[in-house]
Amino acid sequence: MDEVTSTDLEVPVLIARKRDGGELTASELSALVGAYLDDRVDDAQMAALLMAGVIRGFTEDEAIALTDVLLASGDTVDLSMLAGPTVDKPSTGGVGDTTTLVVAPMLAAAGCQVAKLSGRGLGHTGGTLDKLEAIPGFRVDLSPAELRSQVEDIGLAVAAATAELVPADKRLYALRDVTASVPSTALIASSVMSKKLAGGAAHVLLDVKLGDGAFLAEPEAATALAELCVRIGTARGRRTGALVTDMSQPLSDAIGNALEVGAAIEVLAGRRGGRLRELSVALTAAALELTGRGREEAATLAEEVLATGAALERFRAFVTAQGGDASVTDDPWTVLPAAPVVEEWRPGAGHVTVTGCRRLGELAGRLGAGRRRAGDTLDLAVGLELLVRTSDEISGDTVAVRIHARSADDVAAVLEELPTVVAVGAEPVAARALVHGRVGLD
Amino acid sequence: MDEVTSTDLEVPVLIARKRDGGELTASELSALVGAYLDDRVDDAQMAALLMAGVIRGFTEDEAIALTDVLLASGDTVDLSMLAGPTVDKPSTGGVGDTTTLVVAPMLAAAGCQVAKLSGRGLGHTGGTLDKLEAIPGFRVDLSPAELRSQVEDIGLAVAAATAELVPADKRLYALRDVTASVPSTALIASSVMSKKLAGGAAHVLLDVKLGDGAFLAEPEAATALAELCVRIGTARGRRTGALVTDMSQPLSDAIGNALEVGAAIEVLAGRRGGRLRELSVALTAAALELTGRGREEAATLAEEVLATGAALERFRAFVTAQGGDASVTDDPWTVLPAAPVVEEWRPGAGHVTVTGCRRLGELAGRLGAGRRRAGDTLDLAVGLELLVRTSDEISGDTVAVRIHARSADDVAAVLEELPTVVAVGAEPVAARALVHGRVGLD
Repeated sequence: MDEVTSTDLEVPVLIARKRDGGELTASELSALVGAYLDDRVDDAQMAALLMAGVIRGFTEDEAIALTDVLLASGDTVDLSMLAGPTVDKPSTGGVGDTTTLVVAPMLAAAGCQVAKLSGRGLGHTGGTLDKLEAIPGFRVDLSPAELRSQVEDIGLAVAAATAELVPADKRLYALRDVTASVPSTALIASSVMSKKLAGGAAHVLLDVKLGDGAFLAEPEAATALAELCVRIGTARGRRTGALVTDMSQPLSDAIGNALEVGAAIEVLAGRRGGRLRELSVALTAAALELTGRGREEAATLAEEVLATGAALERFRAFVTAQGGDASVTDDPWTVLPAAPVVEEWRPGAGHVTVTGCRRLGELAGRLGAGRRRAGDTLDLAVGLELLVRTSDEISGDTVAVRIHARSADDVAAVLEELPTVVAVGAEPVAARALVHGRVGLD
Repeated sequence: MDEVTSTDLEVPVLIARKRDGGELTASELSALVGAYLDDRVDDAQMAALLMAGVIRGFTEDEAIALTDVLLASGDTVDLSMLAGPTVDKPSTGGVGDTTTLVVAPMLAAAGCQVAKLSGRGLGHTGGTLDKLEAIPGFRVDLSPAELRSQVEDIGLAVAAATAELVPADKRLYALRDVTASVPSTALIASSVMSKKLAGGAAHVLLDVKLGDGAFLAEPEAATALAELCVRIGTARGRRTGALVTDMSQPLSDAIGNALEVGAAIEVLAGRRGGRLRELSVALTAAALELTGRGREEAATLAEEVLATGAALERFRAFVTAQGGDASVTDDPWTVLPAAPVVEEWRPGAGHVTVTGCRRLGELAGRLGAGRRRAGDTLDLAVGLELLVRTSDEISGDTVAVRIHARSADDVAAVLEELPTVVAVGAEPVAARALVHGRVGLD
């Protein structure tokens, strides 16, 4: 392929080609994004190119090229000195999505190594870092050497990203956000996969969320995203697979930082079932398949590490190693912060439909569980418990939602909206399957 | 229609609607472009919106709304105090397009009033202002009062635009230019028509160019642009019509500022036929139809003002009124600046096809006749004469092109390229009709 140098870069000509449905070469995309990061292509030109790509589509080769150029914009983590199979389990994000806190210790208990670098994102609730900080004493400022050493010792570690991982992705995402150019399979896939490739794990199991509470509401779109991510990861030498999973309802019963940590611990301790446990087992088993286990063997092993308490033991070691109060694993609710006002909502008898998954997340965020702007301070104690699910038949006494709030006013504001997001009707309703599809797995 | 205020303007939501093929209301477009001009919507957001519109298309209502918001961004010219029918005859631009210098005096001779405000554009050759300045002494800095008074006296005047006419159009065009968002029927139509509405004429006859030397190469696209412009003008109370005309070959035999002025004078004096004369008659007749004349009557009158010398007389009065040397109308070539080097090109015997209309313009520009950047100084004397046309059969002696240049080196550079833009072959070829279509005329 001919090298495109920045001096002969004819930006409007390249934009016009994409506008008219054509394809850009890897060299052209690399030169364009490189020039953008150097401020020789301006925001308007990049916005026009991205919009043209959102509407016309990018090819698989273009998606791979975009991933490469994003990856090349920053540092990468080297995990090659670790002995065990290194695994990453990213999710495209949803409401009550606490699987990392359950799956990472399960994988560690099954002999894998999970080294997770996180940023502090925006969202309905905090990110994994924020949730863990609900545990008194927990610290996330590990050096790269501390991270690797802890993973070697106990199989898992979670640290705040200090190195500049994929800075180009941050800049492009900020641009896409204000220009309505987020919903592109190729742009989402290159963003997700560039970060996963930079993270250094040899095995990547993606959890692609589908439904009102996720990026993508249509099964075809979510499956296409999963397939493209798997092809990019595979093209770049990682064992990559994906589950497409339901986000038409919140995953965990808990939406809120401390509430989610407590729910995760109860799943690890064998005291809580439900969707969070079910998906954590499915994700762990799928990740173990990627490391070479047979499908049945992987499923058995995933159940085993819960049943034997090995996963909970890894979680306890993990909390201890990072300075947290390990007694949280014995009785989370006495250790984690609690909200001053707790109120229950009983919608009456009937058949439940969760109609507003995203809105439930937004309501938790409004209580103080999530950031609207980078730098916002979270209230780690507040949030919602959703105790009913689509297809449940409930009686007039059933508590559907428990609100954990800072004030009675906050409770009142949430109570007013709840009937619009959790419906109770006369007719039985069916729920969507939790795992919609498997991609890149046998 | 509900008013959209800038404070509740959700820009990404509006961009997303257009991205997905939806329509924006007049109020939304007005608020968006208004916020852009106030720097509350940034270049990237406007670029994304425009690209989405280029690919998805804008509706007729959107095009009218865009025209209105562009028009509202600046001053307008009031010609309502003029007694006669006020006429404007804009062209979408092409190579050797000198019709204004011929048609404006023809219309004045036929009782119309033509008040033209021009900017100095970029292009293969200069704009009308530059061409007129090839006449020694000619001044274009008329005040609005001088302009109106001259039009009342003699029926025509051309002045440099001093008022801010449609500043939003300039900003949007600059953005579209670098983001490959020029080719949109609605964006081109709103740009053209906002300037014509600001210009104040009650009758607007558009010359929409079609072919390699114009914006639009496809007949369907040119016709669609003409139809949309006519609908916008009509919706805003102007008698509007259009001719769709051929630009697969240069219009005038002359490409270059002084050369074009000379050619226009020779047409007015009855000493030159060809495409420039033919189209000037057609445009004048069509404009007269807009003012209420029957089609045959209009065609007869257009020929008459040439045959009687009335149009040439108006041109002379116009040059005199604006300080120019009126003897240019007697013998242009002794008054207009001449290039130091003139060379002729004889391609040999055969059938002519003009294959590179746009490139002929670019070659004239390279000789010094056009601006590459705003502020470039023009050489008003240089240019090309194209003495043959597609479908001509010529002998070995025929001069096909005469080059007027500053130096022998410049001549050599042009000579090298001429065989790629004017082909001479063994087979007879057909030329496209000069007038392809009529829109908005009976």
